[in-house]
Amino acid sequence: MTPFRITRRVEFGDTDMAGIMHFSNFFRFMEVAETDFLRARGLSVSWIEDGVKWGFPRVSVTCDYQKPAKFSDVLTIAVSLEKLGKKSVSYRFDFTNQRGEPVAVGRMTSVYCRGTNSDQIESLEIPTAVREILERPL
Amino acid sequence: MTPFRITRRVEFGDTDMAGIMHFSNFFRFMEVAETDFLRARGLSVSWIEDGVKWGFPRVSVTCDYQKPAKFSDVLTIAVSLEKLGKKSVSYRFDFTNQRGEPVAVGRMTSVYCRGTNSDQIESLEIPTAVREILERPL
Amino acid sequence: MTPFRITRRVEFGDTDMAGIMHFSNFFRFMEVAETDFLRARGLSVSWIEDGVKWGFPRVSVTCDYQKPAKFSDVLTIAVSLEKLGKKSVSYRFDFTNQRGEPVAVGRMTSVYCRGTNSDQIESLEIPTAVREILERPL
Amino acid sequence: MTPFRITRRVEFGDTDMAGIMHFSNFFRFMEVAETDFLRARGLSVSWIEDGVKWGFPRVSVTCDYQKPAKFSDVLTIAVSLEKLGKKSVSYRFDFTNQRGEPVAVGRMTSVYCRGTNSDQIESLEIPTAVREILERPL
Repeated sequence: MTPFRITRRVEFGDTDMAGIMHFSNFFRFMEVAETDFLRARGLSVSWIEDGVKWGFPRVSVTCDYQKPAKFSDVLTIAVSLEKLGKKSVSYRFDFTNQRGEPVAVGRMTSVYCRGTNSDQIESLEIPTAVREILERPL
Repeated sequence: MTPFRITRRVEFGDTDMAGIMHFSNFFRFMEVAETDFLRARGLSVSWIEDGVKWGFPRVSVTCDYQKPAKFSDVLTIAVSLEKLGKKSVSYRFDFTNQRGEPVAVGRMTSVYCRGTNSDQIESLEIPTAVREILERPL
Repeated sequence: MTPFRITRRVEFGDTDMAGIMHFSNFFRFMEVAETDFLRARGLSVSWIEDGVKWGFPRVSVTCDYQKPAKFSDVLTIAVSLEKLGKKSVSYRFDFTNQRGEPVAVGRMTSVYCRGTNSDQIESLEIPTAVREILERPL
Repeated sequence: MTPFRITRRVEFGDTDMAGIMHFSNFFRFMEVAETDFLRARGLSVSWIEDGVKWGFPRVSVTCDYQKPAKFSDVLTIAVSLEKLGKKSVSYRFDFTNQRGEPVAVGRMTSVYCRGTNSDQIESLEIPTAVREILERPL
């Protein structure tokens, strides 16, 4: 499947005193890519249905850094669906800069959940309709 | 009234590529000071009572920067109650560094609010009991 | 002068537990608007020339909040040059949401500065060429 | 070796609209724990020596989330040195809340580096003196 892609510029406030994007901000960029991936399919990372909160909270994330991202760099983030489990979805995010150089590779596993009456969340099997939407090429 | 004081260290991730604390993070530090000021009085910036959300959302903030704050600086933030209106409370935050030098002066006005059934918020007069707690020296 | 405009979406990570954009993130959005305003004119908020750091550090910022910004809202930020002083430039930022409703008004004053040998910064008069670029309609 | 421990409170601005600490902020908390771990040994994540920048930039990070962290939770972060390579150091961070419940486990690998004249960084073998300091119980 052709990966879904977004671009996002490294802003001044994304950098740290080392002069490069702070390592934690790669996760904020991944989230934007994940959200856009879902939005492009009519889904969301968090929504309310019949007064119940639904969403895809993350259970595991990783990032391997290959090359610093600098202020004003325009990063392309390619999102691939790496694994679709019974209750979870795993994405891979490939970051490249405007020169096509690899910058980082991130991964994220999110679990399909709904809120309960007691302010907790419980995981559920991803419904077939949602599975089909997630796997569908755009 | 003696101002309420907290200290907080400037972390690596609080800095930007200019090598100093990013200007927006002063507001995060003010929030910590405001929250601690309220917590020390048994209050909060956000709470739920009888299933209704209550809180002090901000309606106006300012910050004047006098001297850069650097990585590892330990900032003291003195909180003063500058004005207690009918529905709002205004704080002043004086930032100094570990050498006693003035770093910044911030201000924040928060309004006493509760959530409504239609997912909106409405402002209310601050109850007398809460006013007394806010004005009371610690 | 027609204001310079950018749009930026409120991301999940920009929100707080009140379900709205955290008040400090409006300053990050202002910075993006300021940076784009300068970039559109061939300028920057931070650059190196002949080994010397130059930039426009902020000395004063304010924000008045009118209406909460929510996850997925697309905010338009109109940047106006409010005052061009000898050494400083003051911007006004008008935030509106995708329904055209006013969300917030921010202000920022930045000072033209260069780094010194002793790791300090000093303010300078804004050169005529830079003044003309700042005042020029796009 | 007894792990090094710090505590840090989840602030209002650390939460997101799901009402819990935003997943990316766990990395900011890990950084604080790493920095304190180094500071307690007289080291730093970033410093300048003879005009050259030195530091421990991160090359790989992970986090597994077990239980949400909520506003006002006081998290304890235990730092263990998981591996000391030739040029890199790997930490493990165990997050627990004030009730002793496991919240998350993070990992970080940082590489010993110095800046070069051409604004790049190069990795170096960690000097014996630094190795000994890293491995030393406090």
